[in-house]
Formats: sequence, C-alpha cells, structure tokens
Amino acid sequence: MGILDKINTPEDVKKLNLDELKGLSKELREQIISVTSNNGGHLASNLGIVETMIALYNNFDFAKDKIIFDVGHQCYAHKILSGRKDYFHTIRTDGGLSGFPDRAESEYDAFGAGHAGTSISAGLGYCTARDKAGEDYYVIVVVGDGALANGLNLEALSATNSKPNKLIVILNDNGMSISKNKNGFYRYVSKNTIRRSYVRGKRGLRKIFGSSFITRALAGFRNFIKNLIKHNDYFESHGFKYVGVVDGNNLKEINKVMARLRYASSNKAVFLHVKTTKGKGFEQAEEHADMYHGVGANLKNESGDFSSALGEKLNSLIEKDNKIVAITAGMKDGTGLVCVEKAYPKNFYDVGIAEEFAVTYAAGMAAGGLKPVVAMYSTFLQRAYDQVMHDVCLQNLPVVFCLDRSGVVGKDGKTHQGVFDFSFLTHVPNLRILAPSNVNEFKDALEYAIELNAPVVIRYPKNSIEEREVLPYKDALWEKITDGDKLTVLAVGPRMLDIAKKFAQEVDGVRVICARTVKPLCEKTLDEISNLPVITLEENSVIGGFGSLVNGYYLQKGYFTKVINLGIKDDFVRHGSVDKQLKENGLTVENLKEQTKSLLGEV
Amino acid sequence: MGILDKINTPEDVKKLNLDELKGLSKELREQIISVTSNNGGHLASNLGIVETMIALYNNFDFAKDKIIFDVGHQCYAHKILSGRKDYFHTIRTDGGLSGFPDRAESEYDAFGAGHAGTSISAGLGYCTARDKAGEDYYVIVVVGDGALANGLNLEALSATNSKPNKLIVILNDNGMSISKNKNGFYRYVSKNTIRRSYVRGKRGLRKIFGSSFITRALAGFRNFIKNLIKHNDYFESHGFKYVGVVDGNNLKEINKVMARLRYASSNKAVFLHVKTTKGKGFEQAEEHADMYHGVGANLKNESGDFSSALGEKLNSLIEKDNKIVAITAGMKDGTGLVCVEKAYPKNFYDVGIAEEFAVTYAAGMAAGGLKPVVAMYSTFLQRAYDQVMHDVCLQNLPVVFCLDRSGVVGKDGKTHQGVFDFSFLTHVPNLRILAPSNVNEFKDALEYAIELNAPVVIRYPKNSIEEREVLPYKDALWEKITDGDKLTVLAVGPRMLDIAKKFAQEVDGVRVICARTVKPLCEKTLDEISNLPVITLEENSVIGGFGSLVNGYYLQKGYFTKVINLGIKDDFVRHGSVDKQLKENGLTVENLKEQTKSLLGEV
Repeated sequence: MGILDKINTPEDVKKLNLDELKGLSKELREQIISVTSNNGGHLASNLGIVETMIALYNNFDFAKDKIIFDVGHQCYAHKILSGRKDYFHTIRTDGGLSGFPDRAESEYDAFGAGHAGTSISAGLGYCTARDKAGEDYYVIVVVGDGALANGLNLEALSATNSKPNKLIVILNDNGMSISKNKNGFYRYVSKNTIRRSYVRGKRGLRKIFGSSFITRALAGFRNFIKNLIKHNDYFESHGFKYVGVVDGNNLKEINKVMARLRYASSNKAVFLHVKTTKGKGFEQAEEHADMYHGVGANLKNESGDFSSALGEKLNSLIEKDNKIVAITAGMKDGTGLVCVEKAYPKNFYDVGIAEEFAVTYAAGMAAGGLKPVVAMYSTFLQRAYDQVMHDVCLQNLPVVFCLDRSGVVGKDGKTHQGVFDFSFLTHVPNLRILAPSNVNEFKDALEYAIELNAPVVIRYPKNSIEEREVLPYKDALWEKITDGDKLTVLAVGPRMLDIAKKFAQEVDGVRVICARTVKPLCEKTLDEISNLPVITLEENSVIGGFGSLVNGYYLQKGYFTKVINLGIKDDFVRHGSVDKQLKENGLTVENLKEQTKSLLGEV
Repeated sequence: MGILDKINTPEDVKKLNLDELKGLSKELREQIISVTSNNGGHLASNLGIVETMIALYNNFDFAKDKIIFDVGHQCYAHKILSGRKDYFHTIRTDGGLSGFPDRAESEYDAFGAGHAGTSISAGLGYCTARDKAGEDYYVIVVVGDGALANGLNLEALSATNSKPNKLIVILNDNGMSISKNKNGFYRYVSKNTIRRSYVRGKRGLRKIFGSSFITRALAGFRNFIKNLIKHNDYFESHGFKYVGVVDGNNLKEINKVMARLRYASSNKAVFLHVKTTKGKGFEQAEEHADMYHGVGANLKNESGDFSSALGEKLNSLIEKDNKIVAITAGMKDGTGLVCVEKAYPKNFYDVGIAEEFAVTYAAGMAAGGLKPVVAMYSTFLQRAYDQVMHDVCLQNLPVVFCLDRSGVVGKDGKTHQGVFDFSFLTHVPNLRILAPSNVNEFKDALEYAIELNAPVVIRYPKNSIEEREVLPYKDALWEKITDGDKLTVLAVGPRMLDIAKKFAQEVDGVRVICARTVKPLCEKTLDEISNLPVITLEENSVIGGFGSLVNGYYLQKGYFTKVINLGIKDDFVRHGSVDKQLKENGLTVENLKEQTKSLLGEV
C-alpha cells in the first residue's frame, strides 16, 4: 500500500514524517507522469512543483487557507492532495476533472485560472474580503512559468505599498522563464536576490554550530527568519518581506521554510522566491522542459497544421520583404514561430506572457514602418482587446494578427476556448477578419493580409482537414463549394466546412459556401442567395459572431430571408473531446438535418 | 507681437534664447488657460508640462524625432508648437483639433492615445522599426498622470533587459499620482531616486568652479553627465540610465538637461525623472489640481447625474450591508465615488489607472465573500475585457460593473467613446446587462444588481434627461412607454428614449418601449410585438449590440418581423458635440421618420 493511499483528506498530509513525505513526492510524480501520458496535459511544471506543494499541504490548512495558482496548469499535485486522487485519471477528459483549478469542481480550488497573471490580484481580493469580515486564514499565491511579469500581476504588485498580512506569494522560478528569459523584471528579481543563498547560508551556519543547529534554531526562529529574509528593495518597497532563494525541490528545506513562513507572514506579507527544476524526476522533461511543458497523449508534442504553415510561409515572405516581423507572447512553439526565430532571429520577437505589450509594441512597429505579424492563441488575444481597438485599429495601422486555436479546443476547456474572437473583433472599425478553411487558403490569406497594409485578423483552429486548390483571396471574399436549390449553408473554418460538405452529400439541394471572410461579408453572394433559407455555421458564440452579421445584413436590407445561426451556445464550454463539444453545441450533420426540417418541413 | 507669433514651425523654437523661451512659456500658458476655459479640456497637466515641452522642442528635431504622450491629454503645448497654433482655439470642437494626439491630424503626432499605459510599448516599437531600417532619430516618451504603473507600461518596461539607444522615457512626476498615490511602484521610484538631487549637485559644483562652470563643462560633458546620472537599480536592471530628479518647471535647468540627454542617450536608453507642478502658473489649478485635471467650459468641474446618484445610492446601500465595496481605477471624481470614500473609507478602493487589476481584484473580493461594485468609464472597461470574461463571469462571481460615460461622449472623441460596451459584453456568458434610462431607474438597477448575486453590468451616459416613476427591475425587464399600432421603437438609455418619445409625439401609431435590460432580452415583449415592424435604437455599434440580439431572436424563432437597427455606424466617432455625433449616426427623430417611411411606405 502506497503513501498516497493514506491521503484521503488534505489533513492527512500533516500526519506524515519526512521520509513519508519524500515517498509521497515520488508517488505524486509517478501519478502525474502516468496520467499525463494517457490524457495529455501540462507535465514539466507539475513535476517541478511537487515538493513545494507537499510542503504547503504539510503546513497549511486548506480547509480554510486559500491557494491560488498562476497559471492554473500547475495544480495537478494540489488536485491529488485535495481529495481528488481517485478522479485524477479522468483529468482533461469528457466529464472528468479539469486541467485547471475550477471553483465549480472543488471548494479547494479558490480561484480558477487558465490565463496568466491573475493570481496576485485575486489573492489581494481574498485578503481584503478576509480582513473586512474579521476572518483568519492564509492566502497563498503560486506564480510560475513567466506569469509574474504579466501586466496584471505587475499592477497587483504595484497597487499598494502595503500588503496584507498572511499573504504569501510564491514565485516558482523554474529556470525557464526566469533564467532563459531576457525579461528585465526577471533579471532584476534574480540579480537582487540574496548573494549568499539560503542554502549556502544554512551550510555555513551548520559548519559553525553543528548539524543540530537547525533543530535548535526552532526556539530562536525569529532570528533565523531574519537571517533568511534578505533585503530586496523592490519587494520591500512594495510591502513584502522578501525570502529567497529557496530550493523548492529539496523537501526538507522547503518544508522548514513553509513552517516558518506561517509565522513570519502573520505580521507582514511575504514574497518567497523558490527555485525548482521544471520536469523534475523525469529525465526527458528535465532536459527539454519546453517540449514537455504541455504535451498530448503519449507525451507527444502536438503541433498544428496551421502553425507549421505559419512559420513556413512567414519565412518565405520575410525572405522577400525584410520589413515583415513576427511577434508572439510566450507561444513560439504553439504558434509555429520557432522556425522563424531560427531562420530570421532579427525578425522575431517573443515578449513573454505579455499579450497587451505584444500588440501595442506591434502597433508602434507598424507606425515606424514595419509590417508586424502577431501570432497568439485566440483565447489570449482577449487580454489585448483594447490594444487591438485603441492602438492598432483606431490608427488603422497595418498589423496582422494570426489567431491559432480558434474555435473549440478540446481538453483545455473553459478558459481556453477560442469561441469569442468574432464577437470581440467584428465590431472593431477598420478591422478585416479572415477565417481560412484549410492550410492552402491560410497561406494565401497571410500574404494577402500583409499586402492589404491595414489591420487584419486571420483566425484558424489547430488542424486543417482537407486541402484543395483554393481561390486566391484577392479574387473573392467567399467561395462556393457545392450548388443547391433548397438552402444555403455558410460555413466558417475547416471543421464547419467539413460538416457542411458531409451534410450536402447526404441531403439534396444544399448549396455550401466557404465563408472564409467574416468581415466584410460578401454582400454580392448574400444578395444572390437571399431567396433560399440560410444556415450559418461557425465555431464562435452565436452572439455577436458571423451569423449575427448575416442576420443584420438581411434585416437591414429588408430581405425576408430565413436565417438560422448555428454556433457556440451562450455558455462556457467544458473540457473534453472536440467532437463532444461540437455536438453539445449542435454543430453536427445531424443538427443540420434537424434545422433543415424546421426550415423546409422536410429533408 | 508675441513670441508665439514667431513660431511657425517647430524649428523656430530652436532660434530662441533663454529669455525668449521663458516668454514663450508664459504665452503658452495663457493660450492653454484661455482656450481650455472656452472649450473645456485637460488643464492642470498641460500647464505643468509647458517648460519640459519647450525644452524638448528646443533640443530635438520633431520633423524626424518622435514624441509619444501618455496619456495623450498632455499634448496641448506640443500641438501649439508643432504648427497648429492657429487652430488651437478649435480644440475639442466640431471639426477642430482633437484633444489628444492623432496620427490622422498631424505628422507630429507619432502615436495616438486616449487610454493610458501605451507609450513605452509604442516607443519601443518605433525604436525597433528605426533600428531595423537603419534610420536615425530619437524616440521620446512622456509618461505622466499615474500612467507609469499601468500594467501595459510595466510590461513594456520589463519586456527586455536591454533597451534601444536614443530612447528617452520622461516620467512627468507632477506630485499627484506619484506622491499622493499609495502605489508601491511609485513609492519605489521616488524612494530610489538620487538623494542629492541634480539641482543640489549643480549648486555644489557651481560653488567650487564658479558660475561659468556649466558652460565650460560642455567640453567635458561626459563627466558631468556621469555625475548627473545616478544609480537606480530597478531602471538599470531594465536597461535604462536613470536621470533624476530634475525640476521640470525650471526652464533653464530642464533645457540644459535635454541638451545633454541628446548625447547621453546615444549609447543607452535614458529614463528621466522630472518633477513638475500640475496646474503650474494658474493658482487655483495648482492648489486643486485634481479638480482642474479635466474641466468643462468656463473651467467648471462637470459631474454627471448618474455619477452623483451612484455615490449617494451606494452610501445608502453600504449603510445596510457592509459587504458592499466600491472600486475604481483612478476615476473617483468622474464616477461619483468621492462621497463613498468620505463616508465609508474602508469600503472604497481606488487602485489607480489599473483597470485589469481593478476587475480581478474585485473578482477575488467576490470569491472571498464581498459584494464589489466596480465603477469606471465604459471606454476604460475595454482594458479589462478578459478580466470580466475569465475572472468574473466564467466563475459567475457577484461583481457589479457601473459603466459611466456610455454612448457617445462628445468632446473627448474617438478614444473615449463608450459605444462598444454592448458589443464586447453581450456575448459573455453569465453576464446580465442593464441600461437604465434615468436616475431613478439607475438607483433601482444598482440595488437589484447587488441582490442578484451574479455578474451584472449597468451602463449609462453622463446625464439623465427626464425623471419619472419607474417600474422596479424585479417586476419587469422592459417597460412600455407609449402604445401604437404601426411600429415599435425599442429604445435603450436616456437619450434614445427621449428621441423615441419625441418621435412618438410627432408620428401616430408608434409604440415606444424602454429596453432597459439588454441581456437577457424581454422575450415575452418581443413575441407580443412581433407582428409590427421594430426599430432598435441604441448608442452602441450596430455590430454586436442590442439590435443584433433582437435580430437574432426574431430570426431564430422564425418570425418575419421587420427589424431596423439604428446605432453607431461601423467607424470611430470623432470629437465634437453630442448632438452632432448622434446626428451623424442617424440617431435622430428625423431619421426615425425616414426609416419609418421605408418600413411602412408612409409616416
């Protein structure tokens, strides 16, 4: 029987001795590797933080203390230790646990997070609420993976010069974002940590006082803490005691530090700088932590068709025009820009998890005469909505946005769905929106967008389905795929076009149009097809999306065209398989048949 | 003949001697006070920065050098000096100059900005473009008024640990946001400036070397600069030489510093910390700079009906329920929360210009059991779109948003219009959206929203038009105002309802409904009125707004109801009078008559 078998409630972690805690860390790692290799997920960061999580559970009481993750994908050990071990194998699957903290899933998930930078703000909010109600609990914020320098966290750090008691912000410095990153703030944080680290200090003390010093020091732990806590001017000015750097993979050490911080944070907020090894305990992941950051099933790195095409096409365009530059916000792997970095390092900018900066930086570049292409996942552009509006489009600057992972995204779930981009972009003046249906069309779209010399969004999911010869964008906004005399399906994007085509194969009289430009609409086509019913089909909220533009066009023109909008219902889409997500939102051949019945009274 | 008469191009400023420059500063102040008292505008900050602007024009060449303002409203002296003095009296009026930098207005406006925090990102973008093209010019960023600690600027500061040459970031520390603010970053910046200021250093040198030292020092200016530039660890780590603190209202001093920085910045970016007196030269404004930050015509402080009601109603609600707290992001005057701060200081939080933090902080408070009310202008919530989506609504947390200055805003123009809030909010799941049509209804809406214990947005313009007894929100989503048998007008908000009522007085058969809830729609009413044509009337983009929800409802239900959407056209709305802005977008009684003609073939 393993140690994990004894952990039924978080309280059980407190009953273990150091050896058992070490055993627990081993078992947690095994579980995380085994489940992640089945389900896919975030591997390296979750392996790195195991000891720190055990130390937290050993010293705090999460029945009332709050733990907030940033970003949320570091929560696997936490989920296992907080009563969810029996469901952990279901993580990221239909009906199973979420891969991120989720308030709806467990009372131990104090604050959900799939986007980065939210934790210190949320933690401060909890502290305010706690102090106002006269309650007494600790608020622990775990910030890692480059999220610290996100603008929202920096705003929260800066917001007041005094911070509440019993707030502990743990910087999980896993050597990825911090050391390898050129970010100035990280560099500052690293440079200004204690020169003699805690470890070295402890060794020195041990040499002088003998090895029983640590135990004896418990009596005089105030001085010990004082010694431990070195001065960091930035954090001190911002209202924190600074503690660091602590080896977060040394269970004995991190456990002692946590025990002391429980007391030390009683009269002042603490910023704890912990070093961990990303991928710890899994050799491949330690060596190639970036490749093992997020993995698919069987620990394979999944790259998408569209992202590969982006890198390849951009390289060929940069070869011809050196003014073209690529910008991403901590997503060079996922967006396919690694090959641009290799081939044209001077035309490539990865700004870290700072989406707002990425966009306004691009706007400045465009004002200065460059042709920037900003690539990020659809869901993360939500962070920079106002920068798209106020900095790029209001000034009509030629920035091209490549939005990967648009539409439903499967296992990442609610926080990561790319199903709002049409809704938050179609009303932005001066912005053109393209939604190519396959990789060929995407490559053409990219070249076309850059030539337009204006703000353009190109949005696409991870993978293409079927390639075909495509009409160049310059020749037509939309493309007719099949003809029919009963109704028209306006399909946006690869999956929707695929469904529409299958529907047309099964049902007679269906005209399928690849609506590969969402703004502007192809008014000529809309006029031509206005005598038949229309079904719009998109992987975007039915509110404010493509269908809504079509509705508006027909009603303003006074047509009596019947229009049915199929898209994502007005709710957040849970994690699970893409097929299930599409089905739950009626984006299927079957539902097209149903809708046709209601439109035409027959199929 | 004044000195300003000689300034026809920016180059002319370089021809002036110190006395003339001083005279110029006097004349600029007079112009700014006189025009602002006619047209309204941003007074105090523009008075404070006069000498710094003159020094910049005296030392840089803005035919090629770029100057970027943050926030943009500090640009008045710049506009006068860059060839627009003859039009300056038209600022903020119909067809006149914009109150903000505008690339479309002048080649000297390198980057537009009405929202804060964009400047350092844009400046870095310009530098990247310049260096890539092998061009040679200075990029000067003027950051003031609390914009430095906005998350976007903090991201830009942090983004790289090396900064480009010939980048000068000037912090306009006007003693408002910096000294009075509790912001930790400001405090840090202030604390870590040189202990012996530049002025004192210079005095000392003069004592030793005699008063001609400064002139002679030109030969050995390297050492002088070295002396001038003191160490600031934060900025040094972030790739800047730090220079400060310089008296920005001492023309002689700031002019000399600029001359030297031209050289000093050639091999390293410079962060220049300048102290200025907000409202300088205008006694009332110096003493009450917050009151004179932005003023209406005749220098009157304009507070809105709705904002007054917000403060008053919140106080009465807090009296009954201490869990209610108010949060704003540097807008306590404009949103009416000053009286809450006075009456319930422990229930009031002004986080400075940090909209994202304000929202996620509120989310954390709500998760911890409080009932936060976040008040800001509609246009600024654009900055926190993802925080509303990902932190509040995804978790269904009870945060109430009070969006002031919704709809067209008149003189502030393109960057400040509150005409997108429905478009970026209606598709957010779990969010309810109220748009009361007068102050009574607003007070009821606020109480109702807090009781709902869910995410709610309440949006309203500055002023109400007509008060009446209102139906409580709990009893009805919408309210019928007049009955009619020809068509229905669904009007949202005070001005639209007013227009609809006037229209109904002039034309027979018009049913007017106050659509005071935008989400959810009142489906019962929509069903009832489906047999007559419908005109939707809103101060929001026609794309993705209220009308678009109505379109979607009717088409999905299979109704053949004719619907016309009147709202803001798909373009940015220039500054000018509210009446003109409404007229240009067809939001008038006349256009309602036109539309009726086209719907019914008669009026």
